[in-house]
Amino acid sequence: MRPKPLSGFPEFLPAARIVEQAVLDSLRQTFELHGFASIETRAVETMDALTRKGEITKEVYVVRRLHAAEGETGDDLGLHFDLTVPFARYVLENAGHLAFPFRRYQVQKVWRGERPQEGRYREFVQADIDVVGENTLAGHHDVEVALVMLEALETLHTRFGVPPVVMHVNNRKLAEGFYRGLGVEDHMAVLQRVDKLDKIGPDAVAALLVDELGLSAEAAAKCLELATICTPDTSFVERVRALGVQHELLDEGLAALAEVVEAAEAAVPGRLVADLKIARGLDYYTGTVYETEMAGFESLGSICSGGRYDALATDGKRTWPGVGISVGVTRILAPLIAKGELVASRSVPTCVLVAVDAEETRGTALATAAALRARGIPTEVAPKADKFGKQIRYADRRGIPFVWFGGAQGDSVKDIRSGEQVPADAATWTPPAGDLRPSVGRQA
Amino acid sequence: MRPKPLSGFPEFLPAARIVEQAVLDSLRQTFELHGFASIETRAVETMDALTRKGEITKEVYVVRRLHAAEGETGDDLGLHFDLTVPFARYVLENAGHLAFPFRRYQVQKVWRGERPQEGRYREFVQADIDVVGENTLAGHHDVEVALVMLEALETLHTRFGVPPVVMHVNNRKLAEGFYRGLGVEDHMAVLQRVDKLDKIGPDAVAALLVDELGLSAEAAAKCLELATICTPDTSFVERVRALGVQHELLDEGLAALAEVVEAAEAAVPGRLVADLKIARGLDYYTGTVYETEMAGFESLGSICSGGRYDALATDGKRTWPGVGISVGVTRILAPLIAKGELVASRSVPTCVLVAVDAEETRGTALATAAALRARGIPTEVAPKADKFGKQIRYADRRGIPFVWFGGAQGDSVKDIRSGEQVPADAATWTPPAGDLRPSVGRQA
Repeated sequence: MRPKPLSGFPEFLPAARIVEQAVLDSLRQTFELHGFASIETRAVETMDALTRKGEITKEVYVVRRLHAAEGETGDDLGLHFDLTVPFARYVLENAGHLAFPFRRYQVQKVWRGERPQEGRYREFVQADIDVVGENTLAGHHDVEVALVMLEALETLHTRFGVPPVVMHVNNRKLAEGFYRGLGVEDHMAVLQRVDKLDKIGPDAVAALLVDELGLSAEAAAKCLELATICTPDTSFVERVRALGVQHELLDEGLAALAEVVEAAEAAVPGRLVADLKIARGLDYYTGTVYETEMAGFESLGSICSGGRYDALATDGKRTWPGVGISVGVTRILAPLIAKGELVASRSVPTCVLVAVDAEETRGTALATAAALRARGIPTEVAPKADKFGKQIRYADRRGIPFVWFGGAQGDSVKDIRSGEQVPADAATWTPPAGDLRPSVGRQA
Repeated sequence: MRPKPLSGFPEFLPAARIVEQAVLDSLRQTFELHGFASIETRAVETMDALTRKGEITKEVYVVRRLHAAEGETGDDLGLHFDLTVPFARYVLENAGHLAFPFRRYQVQKVWRGERPQEGRYREFVQADIDVVGENTLAGHHDVEVALVMLEALETLHTRFGVPPVVMHVNNRKLAEGFYRGLGVEDHMAVLQRVDKLDKIGPDAVAALLVDELGLSAEAAAKCLELATICTPDTSFVERVRALGVQHELLDEGLAALAEVVEAAEAAVPGRLVADLKIARGLDYYTGTVYETEMAGFESLGSICSGGRYDALATDGKRTWPGVGISVGVTRILAPLIAKGELVASRSVPTCVLVAVDAEETRGTALATAAALRARGIPTEVAPKADKFGKQIRYADRRGIPFVWFGGAQGDSVKDIRSGEQVPADAATWTPPAGDLRPSVGRQA
């Protein structure tokens, strides 16, 4: 009789939802401090918009009305699988009403028909920031979105104990210029094969480059050497230079990446590295690309990714280049919550439970609760005039720290953790600041 | 080339989204002050769960993977059309992990395949509160959810100028007892016909009651008289008594409704009436029922509805009776925003734009911005070292109130509304409290 969970569609119990709310509030706060404006887009896009990238088609959920009218094309809508495609459509649709560069954040669920497995869900929450310009967008925004996202993640770390992260950054121009400098025409083909480095190893990649793309053994070796460069500072520039390859695009890519690394070293030391093997699968990236690992959860893959796209949105005349990063909120939280590593101090917002003496005096309890709420203290009234022991257990089961007693001898409030009970006045009593709202953090 | 909006799927521009965020934050604040815990449920439910109520079937959006595997049943999921059915399923699924009475709020999008028209959308946001007990639930929760929702809506009125509301409340037991006292067997049949009063008028309803249900003309007249009773206080009790009908259920319904009306009269005078014609379409309601009209927007229909359901969730052995109310956030906001009646003071969270003298001094501007953000002031740095007039226009287009200038003569900040410019220190300057965040209200 009891319904079973749907695989791939995680749902949180109330205490875990408090953790999620705290994390989402914190992300929003950081994004808004940096002037990013919120938007939400509808859950559905036309299948045409969703399937423009052939490789993604297989993951889409199609949506149609159960009783679609005769002749109504039933299969033309699908649930969005990310927030970038909807954002690009929103920018095109509303370009005349937006001010560019347009800085937006967007926190919504997305859906993918993937096989559920660790770190992969069919429904999950993403939080994206992007900056989009009209026809042009300055390179300093590539630095900015990385720093804003790292600040957001660092705040989750210091505030709640979410594990620290390291963002791995590369630049498509750097790799393309390097390959072109080696005389390779089809740089994307090289990139795709080098991207398999972690999976199949350097020897196999070298073999692919030589056998399939006709690179010399020496050129293949240099491609692999490039991919092994990973530095926390701008020393990657010298190491690339030492490989002796020359190309204009390579210079451009090196300079752009050095700018990101330098800024991050100053702002969030140790949280960003230049990692020249990062490619990112989606082919609309044209410059900087970002991936992020969470310490101790490397097997999840990247929890926060993005990049620069110079032509994601276009109406034929104008283009809107952009740069953005997306953090997988569910991907971070679901494992931390499941392992009990991130917890809330209680399962309800309630700080005070007002006990009820007898049903006839419920009105008095309600008045006490109203007085506490008027000063911003989340308060419930006991649902039943039970024995006080039962009412205290009601609070205890939910983690409510205080129980308020009224009555002939005057009001008093009991901290049910310490057992201490003191006389109190609902018009003036204030809980310790740390108890006003549920706290969220690593398990004690 | 420009994509067109999808009818029935409203999306807001950034300034309107700020209005929506302010309203959602305010609702959440009220709900949490009363100890309601947030949950979110997945967007999809099994079609089985969604179509248990036959009449709703036609509105459901079916969801399936574009490339569902052979033999995979493709049509077994649908998007939820309300938050009550998912909540009932969540309670059943997690009953062992929840503490009852369980008080939850839930703010999510829902989807209905209806024909789009004023006040009707295919995707819209609802905000629900419910209290659910295990096997029993005290009647005072029927009072509580009405008062909490009215407080939430009253706060929207006083804080943002959302029009005031009147909640119309009835009790199914009252009507059932009255009809039974008249000797009618099929009380639901009477209720369904009386529910058409506003559409077809009293004479037509009386004819239906006599012709289709065989009521005497006198009994039909009494049913209509009952439906016309609408009082802001408990005087409805005497008016019902004066009709001379006796039944135990009638007494129970009158007492329960009187309790709600009395409490509301004290807490939120003028915002709740006993209205004995309110029926609510969904047949799972078993006691109190609520509907709400917004002043000046009566044509939208009810913007906030709900009721008591004694057996929505059951596993065969145990039942979870509940009472809840749902407010149609999009239904309230979309028309107010479209008419320009509810606006935000700016389209971005940003309070200060730091101007950039020359690209070489961007670092100084970034440091100023960081100092302001460290004290919680939302700040952006100008995207380009344009002429100051252009940078001021950047702020003006977005409604950013302050522009910060650095340079050889020392820092200063300009209120671009008044034109006043004063020397300032980024480590100490604070904007007026009303300018820190965008304000939301009726158009000036």
